Amino acid sequence: MSEKNRIYKPKQISGFPELLPEYRYVELEWLDKIRKTFESYGFCSIETPAVEEVDAILAKGGDTEKEIYTLTRLQEDEDSAKEARLALHFDLTVPMARYVAQHFNDLVFPFKRYQIQKVWRGERAQKGRAREFYQADIDVINIDGLPLHFDAEMPSVMYEVYQALNIPPVEIHISNRKIICGYLEGLGIKDITPVTHILDKLDKIGEDGVIKSLVEECKLTSELATKAIQLSRIKTDNIDFVEMVKSQNVKNETLTQGLDELSFVVKNLSHLPKGAFKADLSIIRGLDYYTGTVLETKFRDLEYSSIGGGGRYDNLAGTFINQKLPGIGISIGVTRIFTKLMEEGLITPGRKSPADILIVLPDEAQRDVVNETARKLRNQGYNVETYHNDTKIKKQLAYAEKKGIPYVWFPPFSECPRHEVKNMLTGEQTTITPETFKK
Amino acid sequence: MSEKNRIYKPKQISGFPELLPEYRYVELEWLDKIRKTFESYGFCSIETPAVEEVDAILAKGGDTEKEIYTLTRLQEDEDSAKEARLALHFDLTVPMARYVAQHFNDLVFPFKRYQIQKVWRGERAQKGRAREFYQADIDVINIDGLPLHFDAEMPSVMYEVYQALNIPPVEIHISNRKIICGYLEGLGIKDITPVTHILDKLDKIGEDGVIKSLVEECKLTSELATKAIQLSRIKTDNIDFVEMVKSQNVKNETLTQGLDELSFVVKNLSHLPKGAFKADLSIIRGLDYYTGTVLETKFRDLEYSSIGGGGRYDNLAGTFINQKLPGIGISIGVTRIFTKLMEEGLITPGRKSPADILIVLPDEAQRDVVNETARKLRNQGYNVETYHNDTKIKKQLAYAEKKGIPYVWFPPFSECPRHEVKNMLTGEQTTITPETFKK
Repeated sequence: MSEKNRIYKPKQISGFPELLPEYRYVELEWLDKIRKTFESYGFCSIETPAVEEVDAILAKGGDTEKEIYTLTRLQEDEDSAKEARLALHFDLTVPMARYVAQHFNDLVFPFKRYQIQKVWRGERAQKGRAREFYQADIDVINIDGLPLHFDAEMPSVMYEVYQALNIPPVEIHISNRKIICGYLEGLGIKDITPVTHILDKLDKIGEDGVIKSLVEECKLTSELATKAIQLSRIKTDNIDFVEMVKSQNVKNETLTQGLDELSFVVKNLSHLPKGAFKADLSIIRGLDYYTGTVLETKFRDLEYSSIGGGGRYDNLAGTFINQKLPGIGISIGVTRIFTKLMEEGLITPGRKSPADILIVLPDEAQRDVVNETARKLRNQGYNVETYHNDTKIKKQLAYAEKKGIPYVWFPPFSECPRHEVKNMLTGEQTTITPETFKK
Repeated sequence: MSEKNRIYKPKQISGFPELLPEYRYVELEWLDKIRKTFESYGFCSIETPAVEEVDAILAKGGDTEKEIYTLTRLQEDEDSAKEARLALHFDLTVPMARYVAQHFNDLVFPFKRYQIQKVWRGERAQKGRAREFYQADIDVINIDGLPLHFDAEMPSVMYEVYQALNIPPVEIHISNRKIICGYLEGLGIKDITPVTHILDKLDKIGEDGVIKSLVEECKLTSELATKAIQLSRIKTDNIDFVEMVKSQNVKNETLTQGLDELSFVVKNLSHLPKGAFKADLSIIRGLDYYTGTVLETKFRDLEYSSIGGGGRYDNLAGTFINQKLPGIGISIGVTRIFTKLMEEGLITPGRKSPADILIVLPDEAQRDVVNETARKLRNQGYNVETYHNDTKIKKQLAYAEKKGIPYVWFPPFSECPRHEVKNMLTGEQTTITPETFKK
């Protein structure tokens, strides 16, 4: 109890940033635009609790144990020990898979859902990494089989979101796991997963590093290692990649299927402007549950790691239910992008107040007409603040100025017996009525 | 690592409910309407992290230690011990106060903010209480003094929110702490806080219980205890409460000030319909930091505890900064209301899909025209889903039916070389073009 009265000096907790109102204004616009784009493709909203059972979180996923925050009630008691351990979700994919399994009988399939929520990672504070951030995800889950249609829809939606946010140019890099896996199989490599893990490090360790690792860790001959890395060089913005892969003379059924699938996706993205996407066979993605299409987005001109990605998985929700539920999904790193663009000075702050109009209170006797005017204007859809006391008009105008409120309204009073409105940008002041005002 | 491959059967975690898409649709509508109403009064959005330092959470507030979830990284290491303890916020008031203190120099005062976020309480699972839920808060904070204007604005906004949600009738009960405190002072009672705590239990223990407790615990004479409870009976929907209090013949300056303030508030709510609010001098509110106006909302006809409330505090943000920062705020229990109305069967489920139109894929050859049509309709603001494969038209229609999509669109194809649209409600099917379609 003694802690209660301690004086606490507030400071930002590393990894948990928060925005001033004028930047939050922009973030909120972003979230609205993302939602609107998702809905325009028929994705419905769901929201899962921030909290899952630890066992659910660990049921599927990569090497994530280190990044999870578990919860403890400050005052533990004997009941606490009996309960399942709870943790904050670290992504939106595992909760979605659990949701689909849990509510299986109440959903219509293909189930298309979006989720725009915070996720938490228990990163070490020292690293300066985000520990709470927004992700915006869409996924489609279907029973037994999932048409390729959705593999083409994902990058389309993704591109449209980035367009809506009006951010610097992005490039969506798309591949298909079947291509690299079939290719490696066709080369006679038996244990494929560790090889793909090393190929996935190309950006970090370079071609020589990859070949060295393949030889040392996967015991490939240096000739085979050199062959294994060939596909990673193939990047085309049309279906030329097919011929380039075929020229490697590797025959494999999975490979052929992968090429067909990626061709379908690329053909169905022909409406996107040149440079918006490319088939990039170096894309592998870290998570082992991807089984087909994989994609990743980067800024074209800004040095930064991935700002969004996703892929197709054969049976993620199936971890939780005895049912084959293939799916495909993408995740957009909203906070990652926002933070980077703030650092680069590329986010123009929005308004400090959502008010369109500040109504002046000339003197206390006018309070009723001020309130009445405000109600009329709100009914017409305007955001209206009424000044809180009858201080000097000059001070009231200064307040509007400081908050960036674009119009100041003068209700009728002794010195001026009619409504007037002042455009704060132009300085123009005109006679008006609440019924006829237009921004 | 062995935990990873364990099969996990999903179930709802007590206190962490989640909604099916058709109910989430309604919840999202609610959140939108609340936000719109808040913004219409010029409140700006802020969002604080879900996480605060434990010391910040405990710096001010009632007996809340038991309700806090603290965080632990699943893989603790030596760095963890050096860090400040973190916890999930249990309300939005303490984080707001911390935010205002921390960003003091970057804010414009009076600072009017709204926050619509989840909060977490570490309740025991057995009690069946919500442990994660939405609250929607507005507060105004000012430097040194805060005009009474805002005390009248709070219940106005509150009423408008409830109206916007179209829920069963509510009643806002308003009082002012200065009235009860001044009255008790005027009666010669020295230690007022414990007396108000007991008076606050009137609903639970009744008048006899209150008098008994006042005598036993606060050592009041039974005559004084009977006198102390008099104000709790006063409930009026106009300013008649003033005369009723005065007739008690208790003279006290704080009391007079409280009556003036509540009169101002009541007069400024005269635009609300009869029955929307009342001056109710039994309202005290549990939190000790309230110093003036206090309010609480209940359903008029449904048995349920408070669905929203708030009040004025002299110096809450001042806990964190050497500056006097009076404020007033209200909090609306979004999830509390939603849950209750769902239980009562009073929430009409919304749509399972946000799509306005499903475009049929007659056969694979039409895919391009389907996609093109979808893009045109999306550009006009419609939410459009394209069917994912060229299965039987009947099956495609059934899908639209199941998801509640109101229009099905047929692109030109061999059997019908023009666009047609079917209204799923009326069954009417008409020739159309993507450019001319209107819902």
